[in-house]
Amino acid sequence: MNSFGKVFRVSIFGESHGPAVGVTVDGCPAGIPVSPGDFTNELARRRGGRQGTTERAEEDIPEFLSGVFNGFTTGAPITAITRNRDTRSSDYDNIKLMPRPGHADFTAHLKYRGYADYRGGGHFSGRLTWGLVVAGVFARKMLPGTTFRAELISAGGKEDIEDAIAEAKKAGDTIGGIVECRVDGLPAGLGEPFFLSVESAISSGVFSIPAIKGIEFGAGFAAAAMKGSQHNDPITDISGTTATNNSGGINGGITNGNQLVFRVVVKPASSTGVMQKSVDLETGVIAPLTVKGRHDTLIALRVPVILESVTALALADLMIIDRGINFSAARWHE
Amino acid sequence: MNSFGKVFRVSIFGESHGPAVGVTVDGCPAGIPVSPGDFTNELARRRGGRQGTTERAEEDIPEFLSGVFNGFTTGAPITAITRNRDTRSSDYDNIKLMPRPGHADFTAHLKYRGYADYRGGGHFSGRLTWGLVVAGVFARKMLPGTTFRAELISAGGKEDIEDAIAEAKKAGDTIGGIVECRVDGLPAGLGEPFFLSVESAISSGVFSIPAIKGIEFGAGFAAAAMKGSQHNDPITDISGTTATNNSGGINGGITNGNQLVFRVVVKPASSTGVMQKSVDLETGVIAPLTVKGRHDTLIALRVPVILESVTALALADLMIIDRGINFSAARWHE
Amino acid sequence: MNSFGKVFRVSIFGESHGPAVGVTVDGCPAGIPVSPGDFTNELARRRGGRQGTTERAEEDIPEFLSGVFNGFTTGAPITAITRNRDTRSSDYDNIKLMPRPGHADFTAHLKYRGYADYRGGGHFSGRLTWGLVVAGVFARKMLPGTTFRAELISAGGKEDIEDAIAEAKKAGDTIGGIVECRVDGLPAGLGEPFFLSVESAISSGVFSIPAIKGIEFGAGFAAAAMKGSQHNDPITDISGTTATNNSGGINGGITNGNQLVFRVVVKPASSTGVMQKSVDLETGVIAPLTVKGRHDTLIALRVPVILESVTALALADLMIIDRGINFSAARWHE
Amino acid sequence: MNSFGKVFRVSIFGESHGPAVGVTVDGCPAGIPVSPGDFTNELARRRGGRQGTTERAEEDIPEFLSGVFNGFTTGAPITAITRNRDTRSSDYDNIKLMPRPGHADFTAHLKYRGYADYRGGGHFSGRLTWGLVVAGVFARKMLPGTTFRAELISAGGKEDIEDAIAEAKKAGDTIGGIVECRVDGLPAGLGEPFFLSVESAISSGVFSIPAIKGIEFGAGFAAAAMKGSQHNDPITDISGTTATNNSGGINGGITNGNQLVFRVVVKPASSTGVMQKSVDLETGVIAPLTVKGRHDTLIALRVPVILESVTALALADLMIIDRGINFSAARWHE
Repeated sequence: MNSFGKVFRVSIFGESHGPAVGVTVDGCPAGIPVSPGDFTNELARRRGGRQGTTERAEEDIPEFLSGVFNGFTTGAPITAITRNRDTRSSDYDNIKLMPRPGHADFTAHLKYRGYADYRGGGHFSGRLTWGLVVAGVFARKMLPGTTFRAELISAGGKEDIEDAIAEAKKAGDTIGGIVECRVDGLPAGLGEPFFLSVESAISSGVFSIPAIKGIEFGAGFAAAAMKGSQHNDPITDISGTTATNNSGGINGGITNGNQLVFRVVVKPASSTGVMQKSVDLETGVIAPLTVKGRHDTLIALRVPVILESVTALALADLMIIDRGINFSAARWHE
Repeated sequence: MNSFGKVFRVSIFGESHGPAVGVTVDGCPAGIPVSPGDFTNELARRRGGRQGTTERAEEDIPEFLSGVFNGFTTGAPITAITRNRDTRSSDYDNIKLMPRPGHADFTAHLKYRGYADYRGGGHFSGRLTWGLVVAGVFARKMLPGTTFRAELISAGGKEDIEDAIAEAKKAGDTIGGIVECRVDGLPAGLGEPFFLSVESAISSGVFSIPAIKGIEFGAGFAAAAMKGSQHNDPITDISGTTATNNSGGINGGITNGNQLVFRVVVKPASSTGVMQKSVDLETGVIAPLTVKGRHDTLIALRVPVILESVTALALADLMIIDRGINFSAARWHE
Repeated sequence: MNSFGKVFRVSIFGESHGPAVGVTVDGCPAGIPVSPGDFTNELARRRGGRQGTTERAEEDIPEFLSGVFNGFTTGAPITAITRNRDTRSSDYDNIKLMPRPGHADFTAHLKYRGYADYRGGGHFSGRLTWGLVVAGVFARKMLPGTTFRAELISAGGKEDIEDAIAEAKKAGDTIGGIVECRVDGLPAGLGEPFFLSVESAISSGVFSIPAIKGIEFGAGFAAAAMKGSQHNDPITDISGTTATNNSGGINGGITNGNQLVFRVVVKPASSTGVMQKSVDLETGVIAPLTVKGRHDTLIALRVPVILESVTALALADLMIIDRGINFSAARWHE
Repeated sequence: MNSFGKVFRVSIFGESHGPAVGVTVDGCPAGIPVSPGDFTNELARRRGGRQGTTERAEEDIPEFLSGVFNGFTTGAPITAITRNRDTRSSDYDNIKLMPRPGHADFTAHLKYRGYADYRGGGHFSGRLTWGLVVAGVFARKMLPGTTFRAELISAGGKEDIEDAIAEAKKAGDTIGGIVECRVDGLPAGLGEPFFLSVESAISSGVFSIPAIKGIEFGAGFAAAAMKGSQHNDPITDISGTTATNNSGGINGGITNGNQLVFRVVVKPASSTGVMQKSVDLETGVIAPLTVKGRHDTLIALRVPVILESVTALALADLMIIDRGINFSAARWHE
């Protein structure tokens, strides 16, 4: 469903072309300082307007409806929304009956028996990630001393990303990419065995980001071709520092105090300018479909800040499970 | 924590060298026929004894303590256990103070402040997956008409797996592998948007299997080098059949009625026979460590049945969320 | 935390004097018809303005931010808010340092280390029940054929309620009451053993309504003085009809098809006009406190619609667990 | 479902006449000392054998299958079971088709479509509370300095309980009672607003104890006849001490540092020796039913220790949410 986390619990709501998108953060410690400027940078990173991302321009400034008072979190649930202003719903008239290949149009139509809001992907739109970024700002504040750094390391199979974008634009097509996330300064000992391991928590959050189709930790898929004696990271001191980091900073699902590192693959945006075929859901006829609307050539460009945010959400929840809402809060109180 | 699933909820418990390992399945429909033979095949697939897997031989037959009566599930929680009989705890005396590189020894020691059961990896042992396989048998029965088929597609970087094992054995080392899972016959429409998407549900379960460090759905990491016009799967009829399956059978986190397909990477077992270095947790001295005990050359050989099981658990839960405990049950009642 | 329900999941947010109060309903079936008029009657029942309730007049009309499209639920989370317009925060200046006896002022101050929004009780205000009533409208629609009827059956120890109010007003004091809730037309078989029994689900929801301090099902506390042969309800036909209803329609935590009946006690509102003593949180000095603001003589008057709503939420969740989101939805689709 | 608690999570399983009953405790801090004698007293209080309780004598000694090592909790899930030895299933042959009035026989038959284990009430038996008492021992240890004291304060409407039992035995009937629970030494600030308030948490647990039909906190139902100026507890010092305790130690769902006090009503056991009528589920014929088996005259006698246990479970979970698994653990580590 639309909530993530066990105690530090984030819920998102909204549709691409509905009145607003929003987020509720429950279980957030009281006493965390909040100012409007705290969100500017992260939201700008997520927003469109750069080369390779959509031209749709929402101001995206969060309006806080609850949970913040006199510049601090209160301990009550925080709800923030942003209105959808710049929508051109008529762009989506044709997809009501012709599901766009690669999109959730068909599955949403089927699952919700025709009642889903189809405009701009409705609830399945990447616009819903706005709430993840806003919530992520609170999560980052709960992990002082921890830094999150995600970056696009390849696109369209190339490391020269600008080149890849230029080529795709010329073809009127879209391309995928790989984003790597590195987290430094995490305490060792976070994560619960089995179903709330660090990998489980992060991956279940990460697959909520539209277009992500794979994740690998540390050496990842390359581990398949390694020997145990190569893959094992030698422990070099009593604090658990390791000489290599093939485990990506996680053993047995628990942080080991080294850098947390993982990569995700972002598929090419489904909304390509290239003509495709689809089926008319009323008549069953196969027909050509041109997807209108403003779309990203390389959606992976937007993913780094979202990936950092989701990772922070997962880790903040694990921190609270280990140390409690009040302990974490105390770090801000003093 | 140690429970998986929202309504169809599976909890595992036990330690490698404790009295028993076990599993509780809650939210299972009443009226599912159960006989001892139902578990034989899947447990045999998980168990050691074949080339490349450990020689430890547990009979592994499940003893049902609750939830089964007169050959059918009752609707009450099902608990099954199997005793640990063939343990040689003395093999692990040296790791109490010298954490094995690549294992959970160090993180468990730290997280549980020295109280963890360290013998054979304790609660972090692969032996805990016994419960997943037992629970998976119930989940499979809840999805009649659905078939799960996972297989090891490469090991140590080679497709000739026997060859890879032979080479690793000669070196006294261990190797990793890649396992692919294909699920046919799933209804379209399973999965909930965002945090309970099919990818989220499966991946959070899959990372509970020790040694798994990555997962990719459909085209997976290869999507990074694809164009949207290539990656999009053209819909060819009104039932949602697609000409290609780069999405792996999932759009927007929801099954689309095509084959569900994903791959995982299994790292080489950390318990290699090759001498390594570690730290003495009392003195801080770095010293050589030889890992005793009986271990697998290629643990990935055991993963297919576990992967199928966890996938079935995730999908059975999504099925119940969509159709209810009683609806699912009704399929067995008639 | 601020969410209720397992699959049909309701989250409330807001503060009495913050920008807005609101509610998110997740796990609601698609295809339920919604029109603005659906909320008028229930919200009017909850709202002040009648004899015995506060004079604060909020229009309270829900603004839907998500989850409703073209007059139907979409299957995505539904968020509704209402702005707080008619607030006089200055009424609460003195309670910042002097907690009102009987209120959450002291515990909130302590728990949130001074960061709680104290104005009008902040997040602990009865105003938060607005979201429960809005969500309850959806829950009622999911249970067609089921009727909810709660009524105030005594106040201030009297059955003549108008008389009790008049007397209390003369004394400038507040009074408590007892509200009884009866639910007809429920199917038998709802409820899960132990921790999601009908009694557990309803009571955990009901104690979220401020001022409720007790609940009893069927014969309730009177059962302590009964004999088993009196208390047992004789079954009179194969559908489970019983001659008496001392069990309140529930056996073993599961509905038995008879009327569900329970009663709650509503304490007198803490905000009495009578002068009280409290402690200054800065100086520790005990001093007299007069509570300003507009308050209810008999808050129990507002409780019936909220009690019906919470009961509907609990039962709709149990219905979905038993029959699935889609099954329930199907009742609306046809 | 069969799990209670959010982070400190207790799951019970078993049937009255199945192989065993048991409990799993997940989220329990590592380092809590455990010895077999820790359970003797509480289990003896729960067990039959005293006047007014059943003659069925199970040894009831817990066998720990996991989570305890070298006399301490390990941080991994703790599973304990006890075998059912002294069962006379033939006593229950007649209830397979004739549901006992007041029992879960009818609702379980219906809900589980005939597959429920009907012997001795199956999963709905009071025997399942064994696990709650065992888990409660761990919860009590997590709250050092806190004392739990529940006692039967009336039975069959009388305060002279021995007299009430004697009279009921003579009539071959059963009687109900009222149990009061008082908790001293709790820190202020436990409990989360709304759906995880102290009242919500305790009541949802308490209604898992078979035969409990009502709960009231502090002044409880008597509050209906009180004025606000009477009911409000004057705060007498800066630590929040109050002169009276009508709130039962809870304001706004959060502990205020005073004694926590509540009462529950226990209905008379349904299994009375008096002849009753029921319906034959195959033929629909109404016929007399005599309930065989060994039963309690006054089941409320067993309730105090169970009530204390469930209360401890609820409070330990709230403690962990507030302070974390590790913080709580640390209290034992030092």
